Amino acid sequence: MSIITLTTDFGLKDFSVASVKGAILKELAQVTIVDVSHQISPFNIGEAAYIIKNVYQDFPEESIHIIGVDALPNENKKLLAAKIANHYFICADNGILSLILSESQPEEIVEITINKYKPYSNSPTRDIFVPVACHLCRGGSLNVIGAPTNSYRELNLLRAQVKEDKSIIGTVIYIDNFGNAITNISYRLFNECRRGRDFQIIVRNLTFEKLANRYSDVVKDFTKEVEYHGDGIALFNSNDFLEIAIYKPNLQSYGGASSLMGLSIGTHVTVKFI
Amino acid sequence: MSIITLTTDFGLKDFSVASVKGAILKELAQVTIVDVSHQISPFNIGEAAYIIKNVYQDFPEESIHIIGVDALPNENKKLLAAKIANHYFICADNGILSLILSESQPEEIVEITINKYKPYSNSPTRDIFVPVACHLCRGGSLNVIGAPTNSYRELNLLRAQVKEDKSIIGTVIYIDNFGNAITNISYRLFNECRRGRDFQIIVRNLTFEKLANRYSDVVKDFTKEVEYHGDGIALFNSNDFLEIAIYKPNLQSYGGASSLMGLSIGTHVTVKFI
Amino acid sequence: MSIITLTTDFGLKDFSVASVKGAILKELAQVTIVDVSHQISPFNIGEAAYIIKNVYQDFPEESIHIIGVDALPNENKKLLAAKIANHYFICADNGILSLILSESQPEEIVEITINKYKPYSNSPTRDIFVPVACHLCRGGSLNVIGAPTNSYRELNLLRAQVKEDKSIIGTVIYIDNFGNAITNISYRLFNECRRGRDFQIIVRNLTFEKLANRYSDVVKDFTKEVEYHGDGIALFNSNDFLEIAIYKPNLQSYGGASSLMGLSIGTHVTVKFI
Repeated sequence: MSIITLTTDFGLKDFSVASVKGAILKELAQVTIVDVSHQISPFNIGEAAYIIKNVYQDFPEESIHIIGVDALPNENKKLLAAKIANHYFICADNGILSLILSESQPEEIVEITINKYKPYSNSPTRDIFVPVACHLCRGGSLNVIGAPTNSYRELNLLRAQVKEDKSIIGTVIYIDNFGNAITNISYRLFNECRRGRDFQIIVRNLTFEKLANRYSDVVKDFTKEVEYHGDGIALFNSNDFLEIAIYKPNLQSYGGASSLMGLSIGTHVTVKFI
Repeated sequence: MSIITLTTDFGLKDFSVASVKGAILKELAQVTIVDVSHQISPFNIGEAAYIIKNVYQDFPEESIHIIGVDALPNENKKLLAAKIANHYFICADNGILSLILSESQPEEIVEITINKYKPYSNSPTRDIFVPVACHLCRGGSLNVIGAPTNSYRELNLLRAQVKEDKSIIGTVIYIDNFGNAITNISYRLFNECRRGRDFQIIVRNLTFEKLANRYSDVVKDFTKEVEYHGDGIALFNSNDFLEIAIYKPNLQSYGGASSLMGLSIGTHVTVKFI
Repeated sequence: MSIITLTTDFGLKDFSVASVKGAILKELAQVTIVDVSHQISPFNIGEAAYIIKNVYQDFPEESIHIIGVDALPNENKKLLAAKIANHYFICADNGILSLILSESQPEEIVEITINKYKPYSNSPTRDIFVPVACHLCRGGSLNVIGAPTNSYRELNLLRAQVKEDKSIIGTVIYIDNFGNAITNISYRLFNECRRGRDFQIIVRNLTFEKLANRYSDVVKDFTKEVEYHGDGIALFNSNDFLEIAIYKPNLQSYGGASSLMGLSIGTHVTVKFI
């Protein structure tokens, strides 16, 4: 079984995604191609990193993840293929790899060199990432398609900061389809810092003193469940990041956490230990 | 061949859909996953039911349909797996099953019990529905993953009413991509009530006295076809529901039935027999 | 390996796309279905032709391309299946075939006759194109599903004009996900007319006197790369059509070529040779 996933900012109307899939199918008859997202905001590597970082481990090991965001190489931006936690990632050296890695270490990284032969392609995802992915799918090794390297661009967009052991200063890094605001504060960091203390989670003018286990924890009486729609919640989500949510949001009508609480990417979220 | 279809309100930007697909591919190497829709309005079980009900029979028998809408279980909402017309459905007991069933009877229903081990998952579609679907794909039986039950929540959202044998009172239940308005009046109900009589279909201030067989029936002269763009039509659509449509609509320019006739979900549509 | 691609104006919310996929899977257990685009503007055959024409050759030969746009047959509009460059196309005779072909010739065209048995289907893509596609997938020949024909509707929407050997008058035919404007001026036409002369590319009040090889050619100093965001470029894109683009556009914030330069479908683009 060979799995190739695609994460791009190509959108779904243009033929760009189909072009990549066609090129894969020209090389491999037996392959499973899975769309992760094609609606990354244009050139937004923070968003792309957030998405692929939180989903790749749901896929079988040895899956190959193509990230077609800000991928055009230039004299200052090489193309990379990396092995991390037994998954393969193919992307440009625009900082995305450092965001995916955060605390872990890559097993192997190469600078892709096969593109030296197609220097002017304006479709690097199709023309360079696809042949690399197909090579890996066929069981090929990284060192055939590039030169080993240890250097890659570092970005720190997604890290929360601990302040004098008294608080964690994080930010909202993603607003999901329901308007829920996901922060860069991990359960692991929260737990390491907490050491049994009480806490307050402060977001704009709101304070949460409890964490929910799941969204429906706000509901005290399920026979009157509708009365709790729109109530605020703080919880660690399925990916173990602190999320500020509301119960049963609806961005098309009464709103979600983003609109009701005024949260957007970059909004500060503080956890204060007391 | 194993087919799993997905109907959710997850949207296409977030990683939630890919997360479900990855989890399936971790369990099954040979499986065909088909997206039905991921753009159900948040928590809108009426819309989800309308969509899956009208499409599942286009799939081969034994297909497995996951419905990830309003799926978080609580003390008042169990999770269900059901066999209907030789298809499998996996969903929460939020009323959706009764909407899919309408007049037919399920062959078998179980309350899913495997989630007792993951009580706090905030991703029930990935963490509970996926293992159930994979179990069924491998030929497993329903009674292994849950306890037989006959009770499920009843909702009547989608049913039209017959009034004194003189009329059918229905409502618009869906506006499609072209702005056409689909009602809950089935051809079967229309035909049972009609008994050879003439009829008027009344929608707001419009009356239709004829049914078209297809959209283009409004065109009297195909050499001047463009003159008929925007003309109104009532017809029973490919799924045998009464639809109020216009010929060659365009919501991006001159409009569709929804905008031109002022139709939205909930608009009354009356068939009067005379 | 059998590949069927889908290009439609069905959108992604309705069940129409799933309905087509289900119908294919009912007939064929082993098939790869690829979405090209389901977001064609309603009934817009120019857009559909542009998209499928530029992507089909990325797929393996013998792929089957279903085009479900403006596909309802009538007394003036038959349904066609054609073989072009060893690919199969199934569409209505609404002019789309002539747009896909442009300068090349079809190897074989048939008028589909199997729909005589389902005269009133309002889902021709599912009810007629799918059985035709599955027949071809199984290795069936075109002449079994229809009668050979040489006539098909001609449209010239996508052709640029050469004026007195001094200039090429083209138009913008597509705005992509990044706001870049693609014209109908091919590299081949440009090259044939140029014959070593200098040129000016004139778009509204802008003049380009150079072609870029790739988007990043505007950047003179990559250590100050952000200063070049939003700079205008003219280049022949991956599909060899003249494209008016900007470097690192963002339609959600500062804009793209479409918004910054006032370009939309139909905007004139002139190449003047001097």
